[in-house]
Amino acid sequence: MDKIAIIGVGSTDFGDLYDKAIDEIAVGALFEAIKSSGVEKEKIKSLFIGNMGSEIFVKQEHLGNMVTTLADLPAPSFKIEAAGASGAVAMRTACHSIQSGHMDIVGVIGVEKMTEFTKQSETQGALATGLDAMWESNMGGTLASGFAMMAKAHMREYNTTREQIAQVAVKNHQNARKNPKSQFKINVRVESILNSKLIADPLRLFDMTAACDGGSALILASAEVAESYDSDPVYIHTSKFGYAPMQMHRRESLTTLNGTKFAAERAYEKVGITAKDIDLAEVHDIFTIAEILAIESLGLVPVGEGGKATEDGVTALDGSIPVNTSGGLKGRGAPLGATGVSQAIEMYEQFNNLAGERQLKDIEWGLTHSMGGTGGTSVVTIYGR
Amino acid sequence: MDKIAIIGVGSTDFGDLYDKAIDEIAVGALFEAIKSSGVEKEKIKSLFIGNMGSEIFVKQEHLGNMVTTLADLPAPSFKIEAAGASGAVAMRTACHSIQSGHMDIVGVIGVEKMTEFTKQSETQGALATGLDAMWESNMGGTLASGFAMMAKAHMREYNTTREQIAQVAVKNHQNARKNPKSQFKINVRVESILNSKLIADPLRLFDMTAACDGGSALILASAEVAESYDSDPVYIHTSKFGYAPMQMHRRESLTTLNGTKFAAERAYEKVGITAKDIDLAEVHDIFTIAEILAIESLGLVPVGEGGKATEDGVTALDGSIPVNTSGGLKGRGAPLGATGVSQAIEMYEQFNNLAGERQLKDIEWGLTHSMGGTGGTSVVTIYGR
Repeated sequence: MDKIAIIGVGSTDFGDLYDKAIDEIAVGALFEAIKSSGVEKEKIKSLFIGNMGSEIFVKQEHLGNMVTTLADLPAPSFKIEAAGASGAVAMRTACHSIQSGHMDIVGVIGVEKMTEFTKQSETQGALATGLDAMWESNMGGTLASGFAMMAKAHMREYNTTREQIAQVAVKNHQNARKNPKSQFKINVRVESILNSKLIADPLRLFDMTAACDGGSALILASAEVAESYDSDPVYIHTSKFGYAPMQMHRRESLTTLNGTKFAAERAYEKVGITAKDIDLAEVHDIFTIAEILAIESLGLVPVGEGGKATEDGVTALDGSIPVNTSGGLKGRGAPLGATGVSQAIEMYEQFNNLAGERQLKDIEWGLTHSMGGTGGTSVVTIYGR
Repeated sequence: MDKIAIIGVGSTDFGDLYDKAIDEIAVGALFEAIKSSGVEKEKIKSLFIGNMGSEIFVKQEHLGNMVTTLADLPAPSFKIEAAGASGAVAMRTACHSIQSGHMDIVGVIGVEKMTEFTKQSETQGALATGLDAMWESNMGGTLASGFAMMAKAHMREYNTTREQIAQVAVKNHQNARKNPKSQFKINVRVESILNSKLIADPLRLFDMTAACDGGSALILASAEVAESYDSDPVYIHTSKFGYAPMQMHRRESLTTLNGTKFAAERAYEKVGITAKDIDLAEVHDIFTIAEILAIESLGLVPVGEGGKATEDGVTALDGSIPVNTSGGLKGRGAPLGATGVSQAIEMYEQFNNLAGERQLKDIEWGLTHSMGGTGGTSVVTIYGR
C-alpha cells in the first residue's frame, strides 16, 4: 500500500454547540484543515464524511451534499456510516480512493451533532441503533449495558478491579487538561467515579463518554503531491478493518475484541512491525472498560493485564506506551462520527511536535483504534514517517 | 480508469416485504448475486452497502456490520449514504477500492426498508431528510413539492404538457410488465394519471414512485480476476459524480439538472464517446418529470424536448434511445438505496441477453443515472464490453 500523507488538520470545539448547525460544524473543521494544509480549496477532489446518526439526531440525510454546498466546494461528497467507527472508515475509504489514482487530494470530515434531544432516553435510543434492533436494542440493550457485561466478564476472568477501570478516566481527563481542544479538562479522582450515578452495573456515570457536538477534518494527499505542501509529512501506512458479530451473544469472547485483534494483527504485518514498536495509541474509550479491552486486544499489554497496566501507569503520558494522550473520547470529547478523525489529528500533532504540554518524544510509530457499536466494527490505523 | 467487471447480480422482489428484516433483504440479494457469479463467498473482500435511511425507517444504524454478520462473511462492510443516490455512490466507491489494488472481488448491496411506518406523513418526513432541514423540509418542503416546481418551470419554459409528463409513467409501467422482478406491472393510461389524486401541483399520485422494501446486489471484480468467472463480462467503464447546490433556491436552473449534466459530460469524455453513442439508459425517474429532466441533462434528447420525445416514443422500448427498460423506479420499484444498484442489474441483463421480452438488440454502450434529493447529488455510470 502506498502511504497517504496527512497534510492538514482542523477541528471545532467539542461540546454543546447549540448555535451551529451540523453543516456549519463540518465546514468549520474542514476550513481549519484546509488552512493548516496550505492547499487551495479548489484542489480538493472529494469529501468523505464520517457520521453516525445525522438522520436521527438532527433529521438530516444527504449530509455530503449539504456540507459540500455550504463549503462551496463542488466535489463528490458523501457520507460513510459504521456507527462509532464512521470517521475511521471514512478515512480508510478516502485512502483507497487516492490509491485508485482517481484523486490526489481529498478532505475527510468526521462530524456529529448529538445535543438536540431534550430527553436522555432519546439520546440513548439513538446510540442504541448501533446495536441489533431486533436482538438487542428492542430488548432494552444499550451501549452501556453491552460494555457493562464486558466489564463484569473482565473483572471475573482477570480479577480486574473497579478502581483499575476507573483509572482509565482519571488518566484520560488528566491528558485532556493538557489539550486546549478537549471538552472535559477536569481533575477527577477514582472515588468520584466510584460514587457517581450507577448506569449499568458495574459502570457509572463517570465511566461513560458524553453525547456532544463536534467536527474534525483532515486533508489527505498522495505521497507525490504531499511533497509540495509538507517536506516531511506524517503518513498513514495502513488502515485495517476487523469484524466481529454484531450481536454480543454471537461472540466467542466478551473480554477480547476479536475484530480489533484481527485488524491489529493485519496492520502490524502490513507495516512489518509488532505491537512492541508502537510508541503511542489513541483507542476507542467510549467507556472506561473499552480502553482496557482495546489495549489488550491490540497487543499493547498482555491479555488480562489491561487493568493492572493502567493502574501502574504503563499507559500514562510518561508510561512506556502512552494511550489516549489527546484525552481520548472520554476527555477530548466524543461526537461519535468525529472520533476516528480526531484520533488521527492527535497523531498529526504528536508527530509534528504540536502537542504542547502532552508532547511525547522520539515517536516512530503511532496507532489509532476506532470501533462501531460494542465492537462489531474495528478499524486499526498505523502512522509513521 | 481500469474497467471493473460485473460478474454477478441478485435482487429481491420490490414491494412490502413485511416478513423480512432489512438485513435479510440485503443478504437475500447478496446471496443471489454470489450464486449468479459463481464466486465462493469467502473470496469477497468487502461489502459496500448503499442505504438512505435505515436509522429512520427501521431504527437501525451499523447496517454494514449487521449485514456481514447475517451473511457470515467476515469482511470489511459499511454503509454509504447519499440519499437516493446511495446505491450508485456505493458502487462507485467499490470500484475505487478495487482500483486501489487492496481488493479484487467485492459485493455491492443497495437496500431499503420503507414500509414500517403506519402514517404517510412519517414516510414523507423520512424522505424529506434528503432536503435541507433548515431551509426546505422544516418549511414544509418535500421531495414532491421540489419536483413539482421543476415540472411547472419546465411546462412554462418549454410548453411541456401534462400529458407528455404522464407518458413517462405509461411507458415505464409498460416496460415493468415485461420485467418479472418489477413491482408495478400495471397498464396505466394518461387519463388515469391526470385523474389521480393531486399531490403537489402539477404532480399527481401516479406521477410518484411508491415507498417500498427491496434489495439489489452486484459482485464486482477487477478485469484480471473477472476472466476466471466470465469470459466476456459487462464492464463499468467509468462512474462520475456531479454536484448541484442542495437547496433548490440556490440553483441556477430548475429545468436543467446541472449536477447530472456535469457528471454526464465528464463520463462521456472519459470513455471517449458522446451522448449519441448511448444505446440504453436507466435514469432516476423518482417522479415522472425527473425522467424528462434527466434525459435532457444527459444529452440524450435536446434541451426542452424531453416531453415531446417521450410523447413521440423516442425513449420507448422500440425507440431510438430506450430509457428505463427495466420499468425504472416508477415501475420496477423504488426502495431508494437499492435503485442505483438495480439500474446496474438492468445493464447486466440487457448486455447478457437476459432481459426476456424487453431485450434490446445490438447494444454497445449503456448509461445509468442516479440522484440524491432533488438533484444535489448525481452519479452517471457508463457500461460496455
